[in-house]
Amino acid sequence: MFMPKGALVIISAPSGTGKSTICRRLLRRHKDLCYSVSATTRAPRPAEKNGRHYHFLGEDEFKRRVRRHEFLEWALVHGNYYGTPRRFIESALAEGRWVLLPIDVQGAAAVRRRLPDAVLVFLLPPSWRVLKERLAGRREAPKTAAARLANARGELVSAKRFDYIVVNDDLKLAVEQIEAILTAEGLRTVRRDLTILKRLED
Amino acid sequence: MFMPKGALVIISAPSGTGKSTICRRLLRRHKDLCYSVSATTRAPRPAEKNGRHYHFLGEDEFKRRVRRHEFLEWALVHGNYYGTPRRFIESALAEGRWVLLPIDVQGAAAVRRRLPDAVLVFLLPPSWRVLKERLAGRREAPKTAAARLANARGELVSAKRFDYIVVNDDLKLAVEQIEAILTAEGLRTVRRDLTILKRLED
Repeated sequence: MFMPKGALVIISAPSGTGKSTICRRLLRRHKDLCYSVSATTRAPRPAEKNGRHYHFLGEDEFKRRVRRHEFLEWALVHGNYYGTPRRFIESALAEGRWVLLPIDVQGAAAVRRRLPDAVLVFLLPPSWRVLKERLAGRREAPKTAAARLANARGELVSAKRFDYIVVNDDLKLAVEQIEAILTAEGLRTVRRDLTILKRLED
Repeated sequence: MFMPKGALVIISAPSGTGKSTICRRLLRRHKDLCYSVSATTRAPRPAEKNGRHYHFLGEDEFKRRVRRHEFLEWALVHGNYYGTPRRFIESALAEGRWVLLPIDVQGAAAVRRRLPDAVLVFLLPPSWRVLKERLAGRREAPKTAAARLANARGELVSAKRFDYIVVNDDLKLAVEQIEAILTAEGLRTVRRDLTILKRLED
């Protein structure tokens, strides 16, 4: 088999689009895909596990890691810090693995500046109404939900700077579409080991 | 449904790689895909039908069409003329359809210069030995087979200028990989109708 080199696959979406559910499904179906766990200073939601959903850090620890350049990018979003640990991604890519990184729109742009080879996928909700309903279902403080919704409107404009747009209308279809993107990206000439051309002369 | 705009999908491969078989399978499975039939002055092989496999033309007629700019590109290959009719492709693309164009490496480069938005897929045989066997199986004059093989060696070098490389080792897998490329290309931001972003605010 001609195994392609892996790549960093960044998935961004307005909150409430279903990013986490889609990432979970992708990870379950593709054992060769690994997941970049972000760090954050926000409080864990019920059922969120430290080291699995996020590395939950205190603000002092977060800032210490910022000073030590341990993040590929970091940002303040809705009053909390979020950061993408650098070492995990760099070593996984060096091993030729595929890495899934769910991240907000600003973070995606920042990571792309450092890793131009990254694949950027933007997830869209099927409609504005559906997005509102999903955010309401989270039972957060109304202020938080309103802030997320205002932020989502701004983020949608950024969709055009991404490589791919996937609409999360039907979850199964959205997952299949991202799988097709992974397959196709693995077949891109730039990611293939071109010694295969030499090997043809066996 | 957010139907993506179509694109021209160019498939090139050294003779004997299985390009025609793969194109036939793709067309059978995807009714939304249409096929650009090339024109040629070479003699039909047994079972080849005029207007379906090629538009078989006399040399005078071919040259008349060249003068009338009826070809997107044309070339002399192994002593025969080959040309890609312009009007069919241009009108199919204008209708937003997907068009499959099997063409030699030089032709692919020429079409890309005119239609930079085209998707270029290069098909590789699994090994040089397999390619030789497949060409031998065609029962052509030894001189023709030898010329094709020499030409194939040169064409392999061009693979790196293509967008994607697919190895035709397992026919079913190769077809699925090209299908993934079609799906992913349809999800590319540049091909999507971005009025979907407006429609979100319903």
